[in-house]
Amino acid sequence: MNPAHPLGVTRRVLLSSLATLPVLTGALDPTSVPAQSTGGLLPSWNDGPAKQAIFDFVRTTTDRSSASYVLPEDRIAVFDQDGTLWVEHPVYTQVVYWERVPAVAAKKPELRNAEPFKTVLSGNREAIAKLSMRDLEKILAATLTGMSVEEFNAEAKRWLETAKHPRWNRPYTELVYQPMLEALRHLRENAYKTYIVTGGGQDFVRVYAEKVYGIPPEQVVGTAGGTKYGYDKDGKPFLTKEPKLILNDNNAGKPEGIHLMIGRRPNAAFGNSTGDREMLEWTGVGAGARLKMLVLHDDATREYAYGPAQGLPDSRVGTFTQALYDEAKKDGWTVISMKNDWKRIFAFEQ
Amino acid sequence: MNPAHPLGVTRRVLLSSLATLPVLTGALDPTSVPAQSTGGLLPSWNDGPAKQAIFDFVRTTTDRSSASYVLPEDRIAVFDQDGTLWVEHPVYTQVVYWERVPAVAAKKPELRNAEPFKTVLSGNREAIAKLSMRDLEKILAATLTGMSVEEFNAEAKRWLETAKHPRWNRPYTELVYQPMLEALRHLRENAYKTYIVTGGGQDFVRVYAEKVYGIPPEQVVGTAGGTKYGYDKDGKPFLTKEPKLILNDNNAGKPEGIHLMIGRRPNAAFGNSTGDREMLEWTGVGAGARLKMLVLHDDATREYAYGPAQGLPDSRVGTFTQALYDEAKKDGWTVISMKNDWKRIFAFEQ
Repeated sequence: MNPAHPLGVTRRVLLSSLATLPVLTGALDPTSVPAQSTGGLLPSWNDGPAKQAIFDFVRTTTDRSSASYVLPEDRIAVFDQDGTLWVEHPVYTQVVYWERVPAVAAKKPELRNAEPFKTVLSGNREAIAKLSMRDLEKILAATLTGMSVEEFNAEAKRWLETAKHPRWNRPYTELVYQPMLEALRHLRENAYKTYIVTGGGQDFVRVYAEKVYGIPPEQVVGTAGGTKYGYDKDGKPFLTKEPKLILNDNNAGKPEGIHLMIGRRPNAAFGNSTGDREMLEWTGVGAGARLKMLVLHDDATREYAYGPAQGLPDSRVGTFTQALYDEAKKDGWTVISMKNDWKRIFAFEQ
Repeated sequence: MNPAHPLGVTRRVLLSSLATLPVLTGALDPTSVPAQSTGGLLPSWNDGPAKQAIFDFVRTTTDRSSASYVLPEDRIAVFDQDGTLWVEHPVYTQVVYWERVPAVAAKKPELRNAEPFKTVLSGNREAIAKLSMRDLEKILAATLTGMSVEEFNAEAKRWLETAKHPRWNRPYTELVYQPMLEALRHLRENAYKTYIVTGGGQDFVRVYAEKVYGIPPEQVVGTAGGTKYGYDKDGKPFLTKEPKLILNDNNAGKPEGIHLMIGRRPNAAFGNSTGDREMLEWTGVGAGARLKMLVLHDDATREYAYGPAQGLPDSRVGTFTQALYDEAKKDGWTVISMKNDWKRIFAFEQ
């Protein structure tokens, strides 16, 4: 729950819009105007400031009489993925993809005794959890490059269909947050183009984003490597994945990636960790109404609890620092409490 | 005109689709089936194989009963810009932007005696025309980086509003090909997402693509540099353009750029030079109906004539080699003759 949620801003916008209707002028008391009902929208959200913020933002930017009206073709909303749209604990889903390491090491025996591959092959979960971002990059480069983009897609698809999350024993693609699917849908039904802007691999997320989130490949921005155009022995062209990093779509890389791939500032941004800070800042400083939301994982019972903001357990995965929390409060971003704001987390729950 | 145009392919698709209607089976004679009328569509195109190829492609990929039917959300068409959508002679429009060099040199005097700036400042058009691609990159890096993306946009907009083409004495944004605007519209009216995939600067083209072509910034893929996220003295975030090349969107860079920015293979591709070869090849080898078109500038009277394909004058700008022409013939790409296929070139013509 977020008691300091700055609903006042949105209320002011609403008021200035209502005030243009002569019949209402004079009858308005800012302190007594009730928030407009969200009706049957966003059913997996509990009533509260988070649900209301989404609802008010969409209403004020799509109402032609509003000062914050945005033309349909200009409506852009961006979503981080890991921890914002789907589960990221105990490790980022894509990292689990390094289950491929043994197969790769079988083909390239020189990797067996080289770090970080040696650690991964040891199966020591504690040691694996301590690997750095740089180690992760090495693993991804070794496992995910050198193949054609079609081979990669087939491989990723196969993995997604068979791999299961250890806690729920379900495919990762079922561990998406139902309230966020509803937010995506509500935005799209109001002509917003929804984008994923993820630190995860762009090609990886594109494999399932359309099916799982209704987001087509061209609306997935992620950490991206280069490809190389060539021809097979029959002269047929193909693209090979190269171990060359083009975009590191984390932190400052998020607004940079948005500029590269989308070319304009989003109106709304959703994240959950310090890696999303710059994306929300960049979204926030544009003109007009801006929706900036951060998911706080404060529900150890139904999902996970980690911060270290607000005294939650610290975490290397999806870190939500107190500094980020303070910036959110100061700049009028909405913090979504999974525990209090979400009636249901997953579609498979009763 | 393109006498070897392989309309037969499209006819076969049509026939196989018609053949599913029992009442027609037996009544079909492949040699006598007339091409379906294009009605009032594509009015600036003369009747002929090029116009028919666009019309047939759209019909066969949007007709649910066709074997080549493509789901609306999967429809992607890509267009080169220089020489395909607007005039590229005597020099690529963006190159004319180096008129900014004197202003930049005034601020950075060390450039005055360094090449290629010295040549540009000399005003010697012949010497300027001989500058290499590498020189051009240096000029663009010097003139177009180091400023915030907003400053760049404002600067490019100002230039576009004032600069005029020496031959027609009109703004460059009026020198777009009316038949191609109609092709873009026809594709979009049939749910195709239209993209520009240009060797020109991505940020530059995004400034006017929506107004001129109806193509939003996020559907412009071009040669792209990096940006850097930072904060001004008041803590407000901004992006600065960096002299770091992320994507050289020419030749093999076009399919690589399409993979990076769009993430799937287009169904249709339009180009006009050897720089578009790989894009058309990559588009061509997908399954189902594929539209691959090349504009041949063979109209010195109404626009320009250059090749050197088909004995046209050679050119360093927008080169269309005989090898490209031969590949087009061999692989069933359609060559558009500006002279014969286009009734009108520009909207301002009577």
